[in-house]
Amino acid sequence: MTSKKVVELFYDVVSPYSWLGFEVICRYRKVWNIDLKFRPAFLGGIMHGAGNKPPGLVPNKFSYMTKDLHRASKYFDVPLHPPTDPFEVMFKKGTLSAMRFVTAVQHMEQGGDKQVEQVSRELWRRIWSEDKDATKPESFSEAAKKAGLSDSEIEKALKLCTSQEIKDKLKHSTEEALKYGAFGFPMLICHIDGKPEMFFGSDRFELMANCIGEKWLGPNPGSSASKL
Amino acid sequence: MTSKKVVELFYDVVSPYSWLGFEVICRYRKVWNIDLKFRPAFLGGIMHGAGNKPPGLVPNKFSYMTKDLHRASKYFDVPLHPPTDPFEVMFKKGTLSAMRFVTAVQHMEQGGDKQVEQVSRELWRRIWSEDKDATKPESFSEAAKKAGLSDSEIEKALKLCTSQEIKDKLKHSTEEALKYGAFGFPMLICHIDGKPEMFFGSDRFELMANCIGEKWLGPNPGSSASKL
Repeated sequence: MTSKKVVELFYDVVSPYSWLGFEVICRYRKVWNIDLKFRPAFLGGIMHGAGNKPPGLVPNKFSYMTKDLHRASKYFDVPLHPPTDPFEVMFKKGTLSAMRFVTAVQHMEQGGDKQVEQVSRELWRRIWSEDKDATKPESFSEAAKKAGLSDSEIEKALKLCTSQEIKDKLKHSTEEALKYGAFGFPMLICHIDGKPEMFFGSDRFELMANCIGEKWLGPNPGSSASKL
Repeated sequence: MTSKKVVELFYDVVSPYSWLGFEVICRYRKVWNIDLKFRPAFLGGIMHGAGNKPPGLVPNKFSYMTKDLHRASKYFDVPLHPPTDPFEVMFKKGTLSAMRFVTAVQHMEQGGDKQVEQVSRELWRRIWSEDKDATKPESFSEAAKKAGLSDSEIEKALKLCTSQEIKDKLKHSTEEALKYGAFGFPMLICHIDGKPEMFFGSDRFELMANCIGEKWLGPNPGSSASKL
């Protein structure tokens, strides 16, 4: 039994705004009285299921997002640097395999969620900071190594991530997100008095804090709270 | 000559998020060292010109926005109550005439902008709080009366708002917004060191404050700052 409010974070490493949201909620994990649950899911499935279109397809929106991400990166203190060809990365390469790998790591992890947190962060870093591949087994392996997984854990996760069980698990999480009303990521679900309250994007934290009875202290409450 | 930073607010009374943004920036007008310029424009022209689609057309997004607006309304202390049929109001009736009326009021006003501010607010109140018409001359007349315009000023504005001069003026503002990169409203343009910095939506004020060297104190800094 716990009196902490459960907050679920649905995300996909394809989404830079999800990275911002992820880092902020990770920093607030200890500041606020919340029980944070990572919910890796597949954004492609969300867009398809909700009949939504990626915002970057509107040219003015794409230019704005590039600028907005640059400003937010500094303000949020998250080292975002868009890849040379974001369209290639987001729409051609995609992150289905990457999110299956994250799901496998989460599935294997016991007694905590440090691994799924760190592996997610390292995959974001590859795509949205270092312009490196995040589709191949060797890329997942590198990310997982940086995240602190042992060689045998990495080997196991790489095998597991192509299994039907993991494919189904990711699909299930994506479907759950849709049931909550998702149309994009990041999506935060706060369970307040047994009712799910949805917040979309990385710009609703102040409002969310107000809803869960906590205080918003800006995107980086205590610079030592997060090591990026 | 003034050392105040110029902030332009592009808006249309069809947009509830523009109302939130409008009230917040009006409240900060005296808190921050800014020279606020109201830029009434036509959102329909922006969506068309930018090739964007209204967010409410995606069902999950529409449900979320309804909820998000309800929460934000309370938190921002702006009395938003969606009309019974938002689609009718936004897409069938539209606000071309209303924005021409606002443009006429702004065109006529000398030595200030209290009238354009109040008329805009009263039109938002009609559409987004009281579910009243905002397409007919008598509706504009009522709104303007509440906003404090005299009968002769209202008569003049009603005549003026169908003139070619005013139609062109609204069109010109809309085109200017597109040149700044607009794809929706509210759009705030902060002129910083001679360079325009664009902020979209009513959820970037904290970031904007950071960019213009001011402090964000939440959406309602001093409850007496705004009379709604």
